[in-house]
Amino acid sequence: MKTLYKTFAAIVLITFSVYDAKKEEAPEKKKLSSEIQSRKSYWPNGAQLVISVSMQFETGGQPEGAESPFSGNPLPKGNPDMPAESWFRYGAKEGVYRMLDLWKKHNIYVTSHVVGEAAIKYPEVARAIANGGHEIAAHGIAWKDQWNLSYKDELNFIKKGIDTVEAITGKRGRGYNANWLRRGPNTLKVLQELDFLYHIDDLSRDEPFITKVRGKNFVVMPYTLRNNDIVNIEGKHWSPNQHLAQLKMEFDQLYKEGATKRRMMSISMHDRIGGTPAVVNAVDQFIQYAKKHKGVVFMRKDEIANMVKNDPNTPEDNSEFKFNN
Amino acid sequence: MKTLYKTFAAIVLITFSVYDAKKEEAPEKKKLSSEIQSRKSYWPNGAQLVISVSMQFETGGQPEGAESPFSGNPLPKGNPDMPAESWFRYGAKEGVYRMLDLWKKHNIYVTSHVVGEAAIKYPEVARAIANGGHEIAAHGIAWKDQWNLSYKDELNFIKKGIDTVEAITGKRGRGYNANWLRRGPNTLKVLQELDFLYHIDDLSRDEPFITKVRGKNFVVMPYTLRNNDIVNIEGKHWSPNQHLAQLKMEFDQLYKEGATKRRMMSISMHDRIGGTPAVVNAVDQFIQYAKKHKGVVFMRKDEIANMVKNDPNTPEDNSEFKFNN
Amino acid sequence: MKTLYKTFAAIVLITFSVYDAKKEEAPEKKKLSSEIQSRKSYWPNGAQLVISVSMQFETGGQPEGAESPFSGNPLPKGNPDMPAESWFRYGAKEGVYRMLDLWKKHNIYVTSHVVGEAAIKYPEVARAIANGGHEIAAHGIAWKDQWNLSYKDELNFIKKGIDTVEAITGKRGRGYNANWLRRGPNTLKVLQELDFLYHIDDLSRDEPFITKVRGKNFVVMPYTLRNNDIVNIEGKHWSPNQHLAQLKMEFDQLYKEGATKRRMMSISMHDRIGGTPAVVNAVDQFIQYAKKHKGVVFMRKDEIANMVKNDPNTPEDNSEFKFNN
Amino acid sequence: MKTLYKTFAAIVLITFSVYDAKKEEAPEKKKLSSEIQSRKSYWPNGAQLVISVSMQFETGGQPEGAESPFSGNPLPKGNPDMPAESWFRYGAKEGVYRMLDLWKKHNIYVTSHVVGEAAIKYPEVARAIANGGHEIAAHGIAWKDQWNLSYKDELNFIKKGIDTVEAITGKRGRGYNANWLRRGPNTLKVLQELDFLYHIDDLSRDEPFITKVRGKNFVVMPYTLRNNDIVNIEGKHWSPNQHLAQLKMEFDQLYKEGATKRRMMSISMHDRIGGTPAVVNAVDQFIQYAKKHKGVVFMRKDEIANMVKNDPNTPEDNSEFKFNN
Repeated sequence: MKTLYKTFAAIVLITFSVYDAKKEEAPEKKKLSSEIQSRKSYWPNGAQLVISVSMQFETGGQPEGAESPFSGNPLPKGNPDMPAESWFRYGAKEGVYRMLDLWKKHNIYVTSHVVGEAAIKYPEVARAIANGGHEIAAHGIAWKDQWNLSYKDELNFIKKGIDTVEAITGKRGRGYNANWLRRGPNTLKVLQELDFLYHIDDLSRDEPFITKVRGKNFVVMPYTLRNNDIVNIEGKHWSPNQHLAQLKMEFDQLYKEGATKRRMMSISMHDRIGGTPAVVNAVDQFIQYAKKHKGVVFMRKDEIANMVKNDPNTPEDNSEFKFNN
Repeated sequence: MKTLYKTFAAIVLITFSVYDAKKEEAPEKKKLSSEIQSRKSYWPNGAQLVISVSMQFETGGQPEGAESPFSGNPLPKGNPDMPAESWFRYGAKEGVYRMLDLWKKHNIYVTSHVVGEAAIKYPEVARAIANGGHEIAAHGIAWKDQWNLSYKDELNFIKKGIDTVEAITGKRGRGYNANWLRRGPNTLKVLQELDFLYHIDDLSRDEPFITKVRGKNFVVMPYTLRNNDIVNIEGKHWSPNQHLAQLKMEFDQLYKEGATKRRMMSISMHDRIGGTPAVVNAVDQFIQYAKKHKGVVFMRKDEIANMVKNDPNTPEDNSEFKFNN
Repeated sequence: MKTLYKTFAAIVLITFSVYDAKKEEAPEKKKLSSEIQSRKSYWPNGAQLVISVSMQFETGGQPEGAESPFSGNPLPKGNPDMPAESWFRYGAKEGVYRMLDLWKKHNIYVTSHVVGEAAIKYPEVARAIANGGHEIAAHGIAWKDQWNLSYKDELNFIKKGIDTVEAITGKRGRGYNANWLRRGPNTLKVLQELDFLYHIDDLSRDEPFITKVRGKNFVVMPYTLRNNDIVNIEGKHWSPNQHLAQLKMEFDQLYKEGATKRRMMSISMHDRIGGTPAVVNAVDQFIQYAKKHKGVVFMRKDEIANMVKNDPNTPEDNSEFKFNN
Repeated sequence: MKTLYKTFAAIVLITFSVYDAKKEEAPEKKKLSSEIQSRKSYWPNGAQLVISVSMQFETGGQPEGAESPFSGNPLPKGNPDMPAESWFRYGAKEGVYRMLDLWKKHNIYVTSHVVGEAAIKYPEVARAIANGGHEIAAHGIAWKDQWNLSYKDELNFIKKGIDTVEAITGKRGRGYNANWLRRGPNTLKVLQELDFLYHIDDLSRDEPFITKVRGKNFVVMPYTLRNNDIVNIEGKHWSPNQHLAQLKMEFDQLYKEGATKRRMMSISMHDRIGGTPAVVNAVDQFIQYAKKHKGVVFMRKDEIANMVKNDPNTPEDNSEFKFNN
């Protein structure tokens, strides 16, 4: 529909013909839009709000000049940026372990998006995550762009990642997160071919939905840049009490909405950022706050995806139809 | 007067002649400046403070690379930015509906500035706004610059927008908001020719005022970048509790001033930003706070414009005389 | 001494000769540094803390593309930036009047740095400030760089400003503030020739001090970018409650120090920024807070300068000796 | 190991061979990683948390255009930036003295990283620090890059710094901090040759650790950009109450962890930033808060380094083996 609409809009602009509402087809086809549908849908397990945490393990895979407090002032290519490298190492030396202690303290299981090269460099960290009962999800073999790869190269890039991480942890990723969320037009088809269950690189909803890929159901788990420590990647202008306020105010609204529709809250933490003491402190306080509310459940994304994949109440959204058909 | 002054100042600068206060005419002509005038003016309806919310519906009309958390790191032109597109979609899938629920909860009617192409892509969203009793205002046919258009092209650009949105919603816009507030020298004349009642792209006052366009009254509704979620378009460095503090502290001051002069508070929310859970939570708390005060009224901008257009207490300001005569 | 030292340091660097502390002369010459001196000095009037507010009146004098929420995304030179112009106008239509009401409410007199062209464009605003009993200080004839002017041109630039503002307000400025604090090597000599009493474009101390200009005393009033609304010129990332926290925490420390040494707190507000409702609300709350403390005095900078100019307890600092001798 | 791994990863990428976990050697070699080791290690003195403050004294050594509120808008090279120079001077005229008063008030001894040229320009400041019983640590002879120097030039750069500062203060630095933390591949070897005990330009841990340099123990003291006033070098977007929240939330987490493992909190303040009234106020409140907790000790970094250098419980980390062997 989208394509048809775009063209139509174009004609409108050129000819200045009057827009004809009768020509609309999409609205009928959109019966499953969140507006109508999601108000009817609830969580199978009767939860009022499902919260899922993403814990990115990427450290060690970063290329020269990757985003950090130092990337605003980079060294000439080829010069080792020693403090920047040590800033990244924090994720493997302190960050992930601190977060694992937090999940254990609260008996929560999270989804960890693991970059292949990070697991190669710090296998003990990847295993500690897997041994903690957390989901090992995929994040590519390397920390690099994939939106510009051919179908074949992108498939190799992703397959190499899950093969490598499985060899190290014994777990095969079935959920995907692209570098900076930057997937390409072929990504969902590639993921389907590799038997993936879901991806998270979509910011359009506060609940999981189905999108058709080559006609079959593929799950899109909601992700967000809001409850995400990445907003503080430069390490300034975002104090931990602001982060706590963001989490609580977001929670309060979604929990309220959860009484009448299916709602999911996504939280994201990166090894070297979310794993710092003050952020873990903030998230610890948030979890204690959330747990005081009835019907709040923390789940891994693979569990959620399996739960909603064939649930008729799950909204379907084919906004990217032109890429996925 | 402005032009005369500019020239005068120029001469002053060159000749270093002594400035002669007697030569001043403007001050007399400025009897209606807010300083003198507005202290005498109150709201016809006896309200102490009028608050008007703008809800921009733009999603779907954005061009490639439009401002978003991804625009700081754009893809090469021509590559679909999948996560950025999904970030914009949030406005149509969640944002507007969440805000509509908020207005309904508080029985408030707002002004929605609708981009033509957004309504073409998501007609059900545009209709939901109109059916909620909210004002359908104009925001151009497309999300693009208009300050650089000829008079004729700008007229077509604006007319196409109201024709299109009217065909979809049944409502014809009579209030205007330019893309990034960036109107051109001809905009007000164009709006007058198209029978518009007011525009909002002026940040100079905290109350509506009259400006002469080809000698006839045209209403300028105050707008602001302060109580505006757009400050957080990058999605960082502005926590929802900061936004709530801004709204309350602004309100407290304007409400106090409202006891002795006409004051109006403008709040702006964009589908994909203001429609997120934490911001709606903040605005919900603000509305509850404001409603506890006597004489606080929430109104649509068209209602306000009709109320003040021919009120002798409304200040007149012809600062843009050279463009509008 | 500074120059001698610089050279010396240079030699050190090249020859790697051992630094010889015996060669030091500056330390002796620096007997009057704040370290030693200011601990002995108190305010003549026995105040524990003197607070002085600067209220910049600049609106109307801004050049195309001057800093504003729009300057990050400027229009091609020559195109009128209508919303940016209206954003500046706010200072003359609302901002200054709102601040004048605040000073009146608290019976405080402030120092207003008036740009000549701003007074030419809005003489009624300049007069309202003068008639309120506030100090009319100089800020140049125009809003433009002066650090790059010759001695003669800089003298004309400054003289034109005070002549013009005096013609409009009847008050002749004797305190100076350069555009963006950017004075040049000749500025203090020029100011002395024009019979100025002090300048504020120095951020090095929290108390006034004397610097020798051609051997005669010239007063330097402390200024700061900290308690300054200019930090929020872009209109984002700085909420009014943060501004209030900054003011209170700064005050608490300086007030405590005021018990044993001379301390002064400088606050700065610009017509179109500090004059907005939420900031005035914050400053109003701050003034109420400060006034609860014994020995807190609000003064105009000219009064302070006259008080300290010949006070032996006032520290002398000739850090810019090489420019001012 | 790192190099071996990198190559290995490279091969993996090209051949897409299956990753063979058996080939891993590093994990065994990593028995001393913080994960395993530090949970067994405590402070020799039985403290639950050791806090160490760094006070950078750099003012006077800055090159033209050094980072400041003015560096975003620099003057053409060669023009003296008078207000920027005065902003830096604040560190020597007020900042350091204010901080010294704070340490004295709380009977705390800190580590001061002194730039050689700063001590040459303000010897009385360097001596005041040394006379206060604080550690005089090294920060290079000048405020400039050293990551691009040859071994010999870097050795001269660092040696000149300690010789010069020792000549002025009588104290010889044995701890090092590079400009912007930007050391080069040779830095640790150079420091070892100059008999240094430790360096702080590593952000990877929250406790001190040993790294082998040419086979001998060298101490790495943890440093951080988190509890660091440098995040506010532009002087905006970071209010003092945010800084206090950061310090308290970081402390609460590290103190809790200190019950079961060795933890250290690093705080950094720069003369012209941390020495401002509101920041000193925040740190004063933080120290009072921390001191209410049992087992909290404030120490100089040289004391800590001596304590842990030969302690078998101190973790060893050779992540930079390829540079230091």
